Amino acid sequence: MNDLLKIYEVGPRDGLQNEAARLTAAQKERLIDGLVDAGLRHIEVTSFVRPQNVPQLADADEVMAEVVERYDDHGIELVGLVFNERGYDRARAQGCRSMAFGAAVSETFSLRNTHNTSRQALDTARFLVDRARHDGIRTRFYVMTAWVCPFEGIISPHKTLAVVQEIADWGVDEIAIADTIGHADPLSVGRLIDLIARRIEIERLAVHLHDTQALGLANATTAFQAGIRIFDSSVGGLGGCPFAPGAAGNLATEDLVFLAFKIGLGTGVDFARLWQVVYELERIIGRPIGGRIRQWWESNQDHEPWIDFN
Amino acid sequence: MNDLLKIYEVGPRDGLQNEAARLTAAQKERLIDGLVDAGLRHIEVTSFVRPQNVPQLADADEVMAEVVERYDDHGIELVGLVFNERGYDRARAQGCRSMAFGAAVSETFSLRNTHNTSRQALDTARFLVDRARHDGIRTRFYVMTAWVCPFEGIISPHKTLAVVQEIADWGVDEIAIADTIGHADPLSVGRLIDLIARRIEIERLAVHLHDTQALGLANATTAFQAGIRIFDSSVGGLGGCPFAPGAAGNLATEDLVFLAFKIGLGTGVDFARLWQVVYELERIIGRPIGGRIRQWWESNQDHEPWIDFN
Repeated sequence: MNDLLKIYEVGPRDGLQNEAARLTAAQKERLIDGLVDAGLRHIEVTSFVRPQNVPQLADADEVMAEVVERYDDHGIELVGLVFNERGYDRARAQGCRSMAFGAAVSETFSLRNTHNTSRQALDTARFLVDRARHDGIRTRFYVMTAWVCPFEGIISPHKTLAVVQEIADWGVDEIAIADTIGHADPLSVGRLIDLIARRIEIERLAVHLHDTQALGLANATTAFQAGIRIFDSSVGGLGGCPFAPGAAGNLATEDLVFLAFKIGLGTGVDFARLWQVVYELERIIGRPIGGRIRQWWESNQDHEPWIDFN
Repeated sequence: MNDLLKIYEVGPRDGLQNEAARLTAAQKERLIDGLVDAGLRHIEVTSFVRPQNVPQLADADEVMAEVVERYDDHGIELVGLVFNERGYDRARAQGCRSMAFGAAVSETFSLRNTHNTSRQALDTARFLVDRARHDGIRTRFYVMTAWVCPFEGIISPHKTLAVVQEIADWGVDEIAIADTIGHADPLSVGRLIDLIARRIEIERLAVHLHDTQALGLANATTAFQAGIRIFDSSVGGLGGCPFAPGAAGNLATEDLVFLAFKIGLGTGVDFARLWQVVYELERIIGRPIGGRIRQWWESNQDHEPWIDFN
């Protein structure tokens, strides 16, 4: 196998919005410097929501403006998550050229999370997607609670497929099928992707996995087997979902890079540099972070080069 | 899916032989009581090796005699690992009716581990298997370093297949394809099992996985997809391989039971009782143990019954 895996780094947004520790704008910019330096090319920088709703991301405008200034001309995709027109305008004003939107398949999750029905959330998102396409902005869409909802339980694959199909028809560039709370199992992951891929080009699909139940890597494996080559992950395994009981961190970028190496796929990420980012972030966050591969990595760094020691 | 997964518990042998803490015979018997109580039906009790080689299992005779006395009439398979005639005689003298044997595919591993070539190890094993079959003893065979050797690196699947084929032809009841040091990747696991299953009945095959590189559950998933329904695991994730640099614990029984539940397979194991065994063992071992699902399990026990909360 000689293939490439695209990593979509969500640490600065999905990761930090769920951490008690508050980073300064300068610390966030330094984090993104580190991620770029480690070889990550697609980074979700922040979310343009009301500061009172997600205080961790209150500096969205400042951080986006700064990283666009630094990296927009260097082929780095810098994404802003946007849920309404106000957020869209803010992101655009900072020069953001790639935006992510989202809606939940689960009605209950949608109502509790956004106080909108799934239909209302989709209609709002469609309006934003149309505007973005008109403005030449790249679009990504999160299909939340694609497998399991914390309130409704298992979601019918056909219900998820219908939502994905609708979004795909709008012309969205990338659709991230999201295991929002990390309760999907590997067989369901493979099955749903397989179902969706019969209707929608696999190149437009990504999976957004959480590692709540220690199944992140198993789920990534079956998504890969079903043809997925775009995976979301969070440096250090940061993250979760503030509105979803029981959700733990995102699949760790370290774990994903390691899995890719093991199955023979390049990612462009320098593993040692990535760990430097994790360690620096850990000092700021103030609690142990890092993916499940950490123990092995730390007890085997003396194998030089580590990568030869399969 | 409505299927059953057979768990072959190796904690008392593969687990304990790699722990610094020494359990008394009474503590080991109590451990096996706990495992039986939790619903495990296939337990590798001990290894009949020279006490000076594996001092942790010096009480093999005493422990085997006691658990045979307690459980042999209750449908519990109580297995002794045997590498030579002396071991065979000792196991038999204690009433052991199920024995495991083994040989490594890797020549270097075989020489360093047993001071025999792979051929010599296979010839010895064949003699023991023939004797066991003549004596009406159930036979299991470990094909060690089936994917990766710590000294030789990646092992050719066809080399492993040749060894498995030879052993299958002897009439061995169960063949455990072993990722001895836990360096296999999920795609290689699926591929090798697929290759072997074209020649040998899948019902005779098991996989023996270690979780060294945090890929235990991903590897179990692809082995399952390839048709495997017999999985080795170790309570608490104890274990490793004393002769293999870099090997960490076995795939944890907790993680395996949880994975089985998630993909819709029964195991007959009571999850809560299994955790009681882990906690008791942890007190004796004196260091934190437990599978990767531990954090989720402990933060969600208040969901009653937990199993309803997918």
